[in-house]
Amino acid sequence: MRMSDGVEWGVHVCVLLASLPDDAALPAAKLAEYHGVPAAYLAKHLQALAGAGVLCTVKGAKGGYRLAKPPAEITALEIVEAIDGDEPAFRCAEIRRRGPTAQPAREYTKVCGIHHAFTKADEAWRAELARTTVADLFMGVLNDVPRPALEKAARWLQESAR
Amino acid sequence: MRMSDGVEWGVHVCVLLASLPDDAALPAAKLAEYHGVPAAYLAKHLQALAGAGVLCTVKGAKGGYRLAKPPAEITALEIVEAIDGDEPAFRCAEIRRRGPTAQPAREYTKVCGIHHAFTKADEAWRAELARTTVADLFMGVLNDVPRPALEKAARWLQESAR
Repeated sequence: MRMSDGVEWGVHVCVLLASLPDDAALPAAKLAEYHGVPAAYLAKHLQALAGAGVLCTVKGAKGGYRLAKPPAEITALEIVEAIDGDEPAFRCAEIRRRGPTAQPAREYTKVCGIHHAFTKADEAWRAELARTTVADLFMGVLNDVPRPALEKAARWLQESAR
Repeated sequence: MRMSDGVEWGVHVCVLLASLPDDAALPAAKLAEYHGVPAAYLAKHLQALAGAGVLCTVKGAKGGYRLAKPPAEITALEIVEAIDGDEPAFRCAEIRRRGPTAQPAREYTKVCGIHHAFTKADEAWRAELARTTVADLFMGVLNDVPRPALEKAARWLQESAR
């Protein structure tokens, strides 16, 4: 079970944008430069995040992307679902209805217990990501990134943010 | 984030095999017939489950597959990992080390907080599947499958098990 690599990009973008002053934005090209990822691929994910109401676009000469809500109100789950979709991880094709024991569909009135068990695991995963906010992740990054990288980031943001 | 459809097949196979008497087995072709899935694809997953110690093969005229352990000792997580691998769902390419703030690798002494948050979600998912056994799932299926399907299954097993 794997998520797309766009999830890592999307989360890092949101955490970087959480460090901007309220009225500032970063253009897509600068976000790609900062994260060292291909601008064309990142653009697709930025649009998905904007479509999901996680980011918003600022038009004009000072244009770019910024968070659409305060960092404490954006969850990791929102970012994952914007980029990777919200389909359950378990693919249930209802194979219990096939083969020599098959009954008419109307007879299967109860959810398959196997499907139910996997849904519970999915819910545990989602619940964990739903209680993790961009504000939490931002505080984590302040703590785990090497100090010289933080200092370079601060200077880069001063030069690049609009 | 999606699992392969082989996971559904693998779990259903294990639950069906849990209903066999201790010394009985079912050939791969019968397992494919029961679940209405392509024999060639199912064979690949049966081999993966045998390789992981979830199933074992019985040789000879009465040969086939059976559970390698009691159903209460096989977890849903073992089946998932046998079929879908045990890689974490979150793909971390350490993009924090790229771009204009990059530092030498040795400077990144702490795990990225973003990676850590996703690992916690992964662990919640795994923990849920690790506490669900094939015995639990078997009891669930007895409860959720229509009664006529259960009766047909009992007759089919009597004719097909070796």
